[in-house]
Amino acid sequence: MPTVRVTVTLKPSLLDSAGRTVAGALSKLGFDEVRDVRIGKVIRLEVERYDEQRVHAMCRQLLANPVIEDYRIEVEP
Amino acid sequence: MPTVRVTVTLKPSLLDSAGRTVAGALSKLGFDEVRDVRIGKVIRLEVERYDEQRVHAMCRQLLANPVIEDYRIEVEP
Repeated sequence: MPTVRVTVTLKPSLLDSAGRTVAGALSKLGFDEVRDVRIGKVIRLEVERYDEQRVHAMCRQLLANPVIEDYRIEVEP
Repeated sequence: MPTVRVTVTLKPSLLDSAGRTVAGALSKLGFDEVRDVRIGKVIRLEVERYDEQRVHAMCRQLLANPVIEDYRIEVEP
C-alpha cells in the first residue's frame, strides 16, 4: 500500500514562534551552533491507491492552511 | 549553512489519536482511499556547523521524547 508523506510548514515570511522558542532553549542548553529553527508537521498517509490530485485536494481541504502554510507531497518508496 | 531536518514521530506501537481524527475527517470528506494517518513533527535546524552527535544530543535532550517517540536526522542538500 503506498505511503504518502505530506510536510506542512509555515510560509517562510511568517514568524515561527514555536521555532524561536526551541532555538532559544537549544542555545541555553549550549547548542550555540543553531542559527534558526522552524517547526512543521509531517502527515503520513497510507492510501489504497495514490492519486496526486486527490492528495492535493486533501491538503487544500484539511491538512494545510494555504493562507499561511506551504505543503510538499512525497511518495515513500 | 547546513540545514538539518529532524523528523519526530510517535512510536509505531502507540495509538496516534490526532492521526486517527484526521483519518476520520478525510473519510467524511470522501477520501475513502485513506487507510491510516500518523502525524509527526518536522524540525528544520539551520546550524553553523553540522555534527551528527550533537544533533542526536539535541534530540535526546529537547526535540524528542525517546520514551514515546522515534526521530530521524537528515541533512538537506
